[in-house]
Amino acid sequence: MLRPWKTLFNISFHTDHTLVRQISEVIRNEIIRGRLESGASLPGSRALAQDIGVNRKTVVFAYEALIAEGWLESRHKSGTFIAKNLPLIAETSKPVLKRIVSNFNYIQHDSFDLNDRPLDGNLIVFNEGGPDTRLAPLRELSMAYKRVFQRQGKWRLLGYGSEKGDLKLREMIAVMLARDRGLHADVADICITRGSQMAIYLAAKVLVHPGDVVVVENPGYYAARKLFHEAGAVLKTVDVDKDGINVDALEELCLQTKIKAVYVTPHHQFPTTVMMKAGRRIKLIELSLKYHFAVIEDDYDHEYHFGAGNNLALASNYKAANVIYISSLSKLIAPAIRMGYITGPAAFMKSLVNLRVQIDRQGDAIMEHAIAELMEDGTMARHARKVVAVYKERRDLMEACLLQNFGDQVSFRKPEGGLACWVKFNREMNFPQYMELLKLRGVQVVPPGSFYLNNQPSDYIRLGYGSLNKEELTEGLKVMSCTL
Amino acid sequence: MLRPWKTLFNISFHTDHTLVRQISEVIRNEIIRGRLESGASLPGSRALAQDIGVNRKTVVFAYEALIAEGWLESRHKSGTFIAKNLPLIAETSKPVLKRIVSNFNYIQHDSFDLNDRPLDGNLIVFNEGGPDTRLAPLRELSMAYKRVFQRQGKWRLLGYGSEKGDLKLREMIAVMLARDRGLHADVADICITRGSQMAIYLAAKVLVHPGDVVVVENPGYYAARKLFHEAGAVLKTVDVDKDGINVDALEELCLQTKIKAVYVTPHHQFPTTVMMKAGRRIKLIELSLKYHFAVIEDDYDHEYHFGAGNNLALASNYKAANVIYISSLSKLIAPAIRMGYITGPAAFMKSLVNLRVQIDRQGDAIMEHAIAELMEDGTMARHARKVVAVYKERRDLMEACLLQNFGDQVSFRKPEGGLACWVKFNREMNFPQYMELLKLRGVQVVPPGSFYLNNQPSDYIRLGYGSLNKEELTEGLKVMSCTL
Repeated sequence: MLRPWKTLFNISFHTDHTLVRQISEVIRNEIIRGRLESGASLPGSRALAQDIGVNRKTVVFAYEALIAEGWLESRHKSGTFIAKNLPLIAETSKPVLKRIVSNFNYIQHDSFDLNDRPLDGNLIVFNEGGPDTRLAPLRELSMAYKRVFQRQGKWRLLGYGSEKGDLKLREMIAVMLARDRGLHADVADICITRGSQMAIYLAAKVLVHPGDVVVVENPGYYAARKLFHEAGAVLKTVDVDKDGINVDALEELCLQTKIKAVYVTPHHQFPTTVMMKAGRRIKLIELSLKYHFAVIEDDYDHEYHFGAGNNLALASNYKAANVIYISSLSKLIAPAIRMGYITGPAAFMKSLVNLRVQIDRQGDAIMEHAIAELMEDGTMARHARKVVAVYKERRDLMEACLLQNFGDQVSFRKPEGGLACWVKFNREMNFPQYMELLKLRGVQVVPPGSFYLNNQPSDYIRLGYGSLNKEELTEGLKVMSCTL
Repeated sequence: MLRPWKTLFNISFHTDHTLVRQISEVIRNEIIRGRLESGASLPGSRALAQDIGVNRKTVVFAYEALIAEGWLESRHKSGTFIAKNLPLIAETSKPVLKRIVSNFNYIQHDSFDLNDRPLDGNLIVFNEGGPDTRLAPLRELSMAYKRVFQRQGKWRLLGYGSEKGDLKLREMIAVMLARDRGLHADVADICITRGSQMAIYLAAKVLVHPGDVVVVENPGYYAARKLFHEAGAVLKTVDVDKDGINVDALEELCLQTKIKAVYVTPHHQFPTTVMMKAGRRIKLIELSLKYHFAVIEDDYDHEYHFGAGNNLALASNYKAANVIYISSLSKLIAPAIRMGYITGPAAFMKSLVNLRVQIDRQGDAIMEHAIAELMEDGTMARHARKVVAVYKERRDLMEACLLQNFGDQVSFRKPEGGLACWVKFNREMNFPQYMELLKLRGVQVVPPGSFYLNNQPSDYIRLGYGSLNKEELTEGLKVMSCTL
């Protein structure tokens, strides 16, 4: 009896696993593999200990563990046995590969986001308008973080907090919205989200019943389009021109069908960068009241505005009872700091918070509080002023390079704000081939199709300039023009 | 003409708003309120500037802003006019209160989470089994965070990263799972989530098609129950006894109906704290293969185990092809650090990540990386050892106090692990009244109903002891017994 036991135990004194764990694993595995049968007896702890060269206590602990787990049973005075109530064990020792029924939801992966793919080290990447992470206020953030951690009341922050987010951050956002966007939001009706992505996800899920019609801009923000689609919406598009979404076309649509919501990016339209003009704004609000639809305003990079005019938020209009407002601090700090927010009518926000609790309970209270302090002490505003100046320079450089390198091969409007330029190629383009060539020469751009519904072909690309410094921008645009 | 203008402008030199902003706001508001009509002319910039006492340039800038926004038009040599294409403005100046159709989704709010409510300063709170935030490894976390921020490669972390989470953290979790839970997960099939809450949300949404049957433990974790319900599942319950979920009852259910998934908490069952015994584990796995259902294993506080046995994860079984494994680092660090993870079959994980991207794109890459480093350098393991010793003491104190203060008025089993005790009252209880009285005396406990489906009445309460120190625990239990 004792011989086979010894060969089974290949005890090592040099692993992470304790001796107790090693011994109990061997026995457990022998049971699972059917080599030790239900009801069989085990050697006494003293004998086994001697045999495998460990302290007797070690074997006793291993047996106790296996008894507690239900693998073994101890019978008074008779010793230790393999438990009797174990079900019959598999005949085969091969892992079973039968998988669960695979009709999962969310199977498709439409990967049109450039950021999804890992970046080559030395590529010059024209992203879709993201900020330059090298300008992120890291030192300030790190210090604010540390201050919060050293604070007396920090324990409160570490437990469960409000589902709407840190109260102080909501207060600071309310102050900022009133000052910069003309929007007076009740702190109780603001919810901090994991980036504006989660805000749109929540809004779509709360608003849309399957079959509801949701209008999106064309061209427009594909990620939002996808979220409304996934929520069950029937998507309709309305074209965008130099003054923003065509509200007359929208009105015609209202006459034809019941619309549940209209998703717009009025400040710097995505992807065209145009500002929606005042007349259109008023009409959009009037239509939302007349035809009873929600307007979802994505004010995604309002901090970055360089032009003369700086329209306040649509939601600031005194008749904007149906406007849901979404924005983000991620563009001001860094994409990895997922910090968005949403505000809207109280009843809507109540439902939204109910869903938010289901998804992740609450945000990162510590990070939220740290950012709130940077807003309160003026650090964020100073940072914004600093980077706006940098980005304005880059925009101007972008304009100069485009004019100089491309001449009349491209057309574009100098963007009033945001971190990207919407560029039209005045010749027939084979974009996949062009992008392939560019990549060989170290430059990457966003594929042009994804901005239009059904990826309809287009002569435009969206060139982000925010994340590239002077040298990168100059070099990148030179390569692009030489490759034409 | 000039008189009324002057009275309109009540310029302040002591606000956050620039003079340009103040002037353009006055004009914009006059247009919106219908007091300046479409097509009307404005005074020249020089005249207006003189009249309201500002520099002429200021008025020019304000006019330019309003022109860019579409409120005004400039006609060559004739001056500046209110834009012609503005739609008719509202007749009334009262805010419109007509709200959007209010048939939102997610309207109900079942608030059974004690943590939802703000805590009174000096209450002794027996929560549901949360850790003591006063023991959180704050200094270590803060330093790790700072180190990441000072690192050369930090810029990469600040941009968009992997939807599955920081690679290094996934690697560290894989190592830890193999070492502590016997589970060998492919790093590519691990996804970091915002707490285990998000992991359960994602799993429910990916697995459940409306009408699918999902089995949950009774009593069980209400938050998981709710997520499956919201995903469209038909819920069935199977009772839990001292050995875990009753697998024979589950088998009978399998014979009656097609089951899509079974949600279990085998390690320390929630709320009863019992460990699922080995025989039941094997049978559950065998049933999942025979009847083709997914097992969702929520291994939510595996770090805190004090007893002799420490069953490995269900998912570690070599036949666990259908097991989806969920756990969390939040209980080890602090609830506010929402850091969960999930792993399962590759095809399932692919769908899950697709949904995750929709919700919030990715996790907090910086925090994830900081925690990965604390796992790599052994800090987390040291912290775990330290707090396990503290919590074991608290458990033993809990046991002693319950025995001493309550005698045979309550029954309970000493929990093998976790941070709570499942206590049965051996007399008829009026819980709402009892809780009311307790609160007056400074003690709060979790209402007992929420653990059972349909809030069926119960004699049990779940008393968390982890978050209370020696004095709080002793005092709290004394008050509870005196109030009986």
